Amino acid sequence: MKVSRRDLLAGAAGVVALGATTATQPPEAPADPTKVRGRPSRALGQRAPSEKPQRQPRGATSSGTPHQDLCGTITPSDLHFERHHGGVPDIDPKSYSLLIHGMVERPMMFTLADLKRFPAVSRVHFLECSGNFGGRGAATDLTPQQIAGLTSTSEWTGVPLATLFREVGVRPQATWFLAEGGDAAVLTRSIPVAKALDDALIAYGQNGEAIRPEQGYPARLFLPGWEGNSNVKWLRRIELSDRPFMTREETSKYTEPMADGSARMFSFLMDARSLITYPAYPVTLTRGWIEINGIAWTGSGRIARVDVSTDGGATWTAAKLQEPVLPKAHTRFRHLWNWSGGDAVIMSRASDETGYAQPTREALIKSRGVSSVGYHINPITGWRVRPDGTVVYHAEPWS
Amino acid sequence: MKVSRRDLLAGAAGVVALGATTATQPPEAPADPTKVRGRPSRALGQRAPSEKPQRQPRGATSSGTPHQDLCGTITPSDLHFERHHGGVPDIDPKSYSLLIHGMVERPMMFTLADLKRFPAVSRVHFLECSGNFGGRGAATDLTPQQIAGLTSTSEWTGVPLATLFREVGVRPQATWFLAEGGDAAVLTRSIPVAKALDDALIAYGQNGEAIRPEQGYPARLFLPGWEGNSNVKWLRRIELSDRPFMTREETSKYTEPMADGSARMFSFLMDARSLITYPAYPVTLTRGWIEINGIAWTGSGRIARVDVSTDGGATWTAAKLQEPVLPKAHTRFRHLWNWSGGDAVIMSRASDETGYAQPTREALIKSRGVSSVGYHINPITGWRVRPDGTVVYHAEPWS
Repeated sequence: MKVSRRDLLAGAAGVVALGATTATQPPEAPADPTKVRGRPSRALGQRAPSEKPQRQPRGATSSGTPHQDLCGTITPSDLHFERHHGGVPDIDPKSYSLLIHGMVERPMMFTLADLKRFPAVSRVHFLECSGNFGGRGAATDLTPQQIAGLTSTSEWTGVPLATLFREVGVRPQATWFLAEGGDAAVLTRSIPVAKALDDALIAYGQNGEAIRPEQGYPARLFLPGWEGNSNVKWLRRIELSDRPFMTREETSKYTEPMADGSARMFSFLMDARSLITYPAYPVTLTRGWIEINGIAWTGSGRIARVDVSTDGGATWTAAKLQEPVLPKAHTRFRHLWNWSGGDAVIMSRASDETGYAQPTREALIKSRGVSSVGYHINPITGWRVRPDGTVVYHAEPWS
Repeated sequence: MKVSRRDLLAGAAGVVALGATTATQPPEAPADPTKVRGRPSRALGQRAPSEKPQRQPRGATSSGTPHQDLCGTITPSDLHFERHHGGVPDIDPKSYSLLIHGMVERPMMFTLADLKRFPAVSRVHFLECSGNFGGRGAATDLTPQQIAGLTSTSEWTGVPLATLFREVGVRPQATWFLAEGGDAAVLTRSIPVAKALDDALIAYGQNGEAIRPEQGYPARLFLPGWEGNSNVKWLRRIELSDRPFMTREETSKYTEPMADGSARMFSFLMDARSLITYPAYPVTLTRGWIEINGIAWTGSGRIARVDVSTDGGATWTAAKLQEPVLPKAHTRFRHLWNWSGGDAVIMSRASDETGYAQPTREALIKSRGVSSVGYHINPITGWRVRPDGTVVYHAEPWS
């Protein structure tokens, strides 16, 4: 006998016979696990055979986090999104070094051991690619990973860049610095010194262990709340200057055309956004109480509220935010919904502590135009629940 | 030319030539990673080849977290400690069920899908085996993993047990419940209903994904701050009663003899403790500024302070606590120390918000005796730094 959630909520279920399931057993699982001695302890754990969360590579240069499979706020490190321009390099940590030079009193080179000897901090922060929006077309068979998989949250550990800047003696006239990666792309970005003095890190730890190769092993620049590519991975050089360097990656890319024909540069900040991760394509729902939940984040401090609509945006209700709400980190929101079986569009809208609210698609198109360039696109999105319980992306083409 | 931390602090280093290292390259790492196209994106990330953190199995039934390799507060799931009495079972999530019966109005059976349909919470908490102390002998070649590896911290997601107890209608006279595991040991423990109504969870998520097999897949009891074995894994049955069940695991084990000849039962709470994870055996130090750091935790809410001594306990200084300090979670503490090269014993002492302070070895022996039974042993411990920079466990035999 199957006990449905509706039965449970109605308080109608009595004692149910054990062992009444007809589910197929995978070969790994014995019918009665109490009769079989289990596996001995081992040096590294592995996932259960039934659990197969995976990043979905988009070509050779990126892969997204499968948010539809996740339930908290920490992203397991092997599922953290990746984005690179020259592949993931193998770097020997023993020969790694970071040079800081330019407008400084004492140019210095730091080994990894040098970096680890400075006082460290650990902070939980999201990271997001500025091109993290996959929902501008007419396709409806899109998962949360395909809509917004290029964001993840980790506990990052490293040395504050401000500490290193004091060490080398950054000169007063130095207002920008170049960050250069040691990968085949030798990616470079210009970053204001003010960010270094605020909360930037040279990170070597991720979720308690060494940073993973795809996230910049052995050390990367980490700029909390700023677009992913400016958080230069495999960081090998920082050069101080009194102006930005106007590198290829900040002129040919990572610059947004606006509706008025102008272009926006140095748009580092990732604005508030949210994503319902359940229910979402490709799940199928059964009627009754459903906890709509997802993640919200902002580069401007803390998420202040997330509103959820179950009628396509006509009315909104504040969702519950999972405490603690940390600055510049994914925050899980939850909202109970009694789905009676009709057609419905569910949506979420994040607001942050600065008062900024996630914009509608219409507002974004009005300010940004319909260019094919897709940086910093953070519209309110939704999922359509059909009467048969199937859930699809609520596509609203970008034109 | 090698740039030492002392040189850096003295501001004495000038520009250092790049590429001056003589370190051996592992075969994976090219001499110049900018000249080699890197790896394409992939479905699951892996650690860098140079990074090999591992749990250390102690026989077939447990393995510890390598705290000496970790730097934050979250424990990567494949490094979470394990402890089991009948091995790690393989359980088919489709046929999994949890029966709640006994002194209830409506006995019910919940499938995994049923459990996931209830409103969920996510909370960062430590877990600790009550037998988590490996430092009672004379050995000094012990790592943090060997001293206290049977504790780890994860973000746990699940349904509050209070919700399920409301669902089944727990009767007013029911004050205890039996929790029974579905592994080959069929481990059982008696738990007060008050804990269920406080903060107990039926957890199915760990660090954002499905709970790992060694931690109870697909669902376990989670009792924040209470000894590991009472957090019954692979939970298959809960029976409500008006008295404890006096099971084998709570009479033959998990009961502490006291110095006065009596025995203490139902000692669920894990008291405050701390562990310096760096510097610790087997690292070798060089002189100068060193950030002593480690983890502190308590089952009684938040860690209030951690004091560090660098003179064998004669004087103590408050360490910095990494924010946010979360209740019943590992908290990283940090303390800058200028090691001038002499013999030194470094120690840490945790205090929690109830005013409880981690006891000395002498105080523990006075109250508990010198029995070989080793549950709930949380003494202040230390590391001896020798003049040559080697670091060993500061052994003080338990007699």
